[in-house]
Amino acid sequence: MPTFALELEYDGTPYVGWQAQDNGVAIQQRLEAAAANLVLTTPPISVTAGRTDSGVHAEAMVVQLTIDRDITPDRLRDALNYHLKPDPIVIRRAAIAAPGWNARFSAISRHYRYRILNRAARPALLLNRVWHVAAPLDAAAMHQAAQTLLGTHDFTSYRATACQAKSPIRSLERLDVTRSGDLIEFDVKARSFLHHQVRNFVGTLRLVGDGTWPISRPHEILAARNRAAAGPTAPAAGLTIIAVGYLQDPFTP
Amino acid sequence: MPTFALELEYDGTPYVGWQAQDNGVAIQQRLEAAAANLVLTTPPISVTAGRTDSGVHAEAMVVQLTIDRDITPDRLRDALNYHLKPDPIVIRRAAIAAPGWNARFSAISRHYRYRILNRAARPALLLNRVWHVAAPLDAAAMHQAAQTLLGTHDFTSYRATACQAKSPIRSLERLDVTRSGDLIEFDVKARSFLHHQVRNFVGTLRLVGDGTWPISRPHEILAARNRAAAGPTAPAAGLTIIAVGYLQDPFTP
Repeated sequence: MPTFALELEYDGTPYVGWQAQDNGVAIQQRLEAAAANLVLTTPPISVTAGRTDSGVHAEAMVVQLTIDRDITPDRLRDALNYHLKPDPIVIRRAAIAAPGWNARFSAISRHYRYRILNRAARPALLLNRVWHVAAPLDAAAMHQAAQTLLGTHDFTSYRATACQAKSPIRSLERLDVTRSGDLIEFDVKARSFLHHQVRNFVGTLRLVGDGTWPISRPHEILAARNRAAAGPTAPAAGLTIIAVGYLQDPFTP
Repeated sequence: MPTFALELEYDGTPYVGWQAQDNGVAIQQRLEAAAANLVLTTPPISVTAGRTDSGVHAEAMVVQLTIDRDITPDRLRDALNYHLKPDPIVIRRAAIAAPGWNARFSAISRHYRYRILNRAARPALLLNRVWHVAAPLDAAAMHQAAQTLLGTHDFTSYRATACQAKSPIRSLERLDVTRSGDLIEFDVKARSFLHHQVRNFVGTLRLVGDGTWPISRPHEILAARNRAAAGPTAPAAGLTIIAVGYLQDPFTP
């Protein structure tokens, strides 16, 4: 059975997240239901590079899809996009996966972007795409604090208490905070992340941005190894996965 | 009665446009209904710098609002944003207007941006914000053709047949076409525009972009002075007003 690499774009707002839950529709369900129209007898199987939470978006999530039918990647992309209508989920690119390639385990980096709309007025054009913070935030201070989190650390203080990863050790490659007008963007990159790690970084750095905490605090919080030491989890709507990296780009022949 | 300058952001998708129509809700109606909560006895009056059509968006439309009550601009902004909830219309900035200032007649430039999503997959994150064109478009050819439209011309071929402007003569200051990944942006600037002028430029240039017409055609179409000579009107969803210019910025004291 052929396995394909898919690049997905989706608006996470109407979904319970990637994975099926009792309380609503999951992105994986919608993808596999669309793919079920294309298979011969065996149900399709999909594996994602990242199980995004409810309300989290994707510009380019990478997913692996196995179906029991030979089809060209472009036809698969178009057929899935047809069957996914009118859901805000689309396949941007499709390619035949190399033998042994796995969307999740072959990934060597994940790049997320978090966006805060920092102004008095609530969002209109960016509704459900940003976290609205009305109080003025100091992006330079947040960036400075963010740099103290780079490198390999025990990130227990920054992971959800329900996080199921065996180890709380992760290596943070990048955490850039930049302002462009009313928009503050957090660009965060690592090989892999703990549950809620990016949103907990943002919820904590925001308290530096509004002056509640000093620039030194986010690094001190690491030593506490206690989720309660960090700030609150920032809302899902501001988070988007931008790119997944592999040693060999699955979409470049 | 004090007059205020307001900077509006709105998602035009759910509205019939700025102006009231028989078939749905207008942005002006929603703004004046919100302002009606703040007046003493006289109904509020609003004037816009541009009467956008149904489905057209605003990042920063300038509107003048007259109400029979003294209130600080920041309180006016917050009160209107409160009463506009949950509509995707917000006041980004408010200021007291200078005597004699008029949002429409004092404006010396309008800057619109039109966006085409140029890829096989329909939009998910940019749903209702772009025109989806699957056929590959040559942005450089469109830009070259666009430059031949700059300057002062009789734009009869590029205005809606129902356009009510007395003169079809307009001066086009800027029409830049740039590609960034799958997104093609048209930045269009003039003192004022005819009805559907920007969308008719885009619908015509697209036919240059896909190779149907030569680069010389959009300029030749001017001489026809006939709407039928130009391309079709591009969809409203791709159009956003980005800025309105005044000799004296109404939001800078």
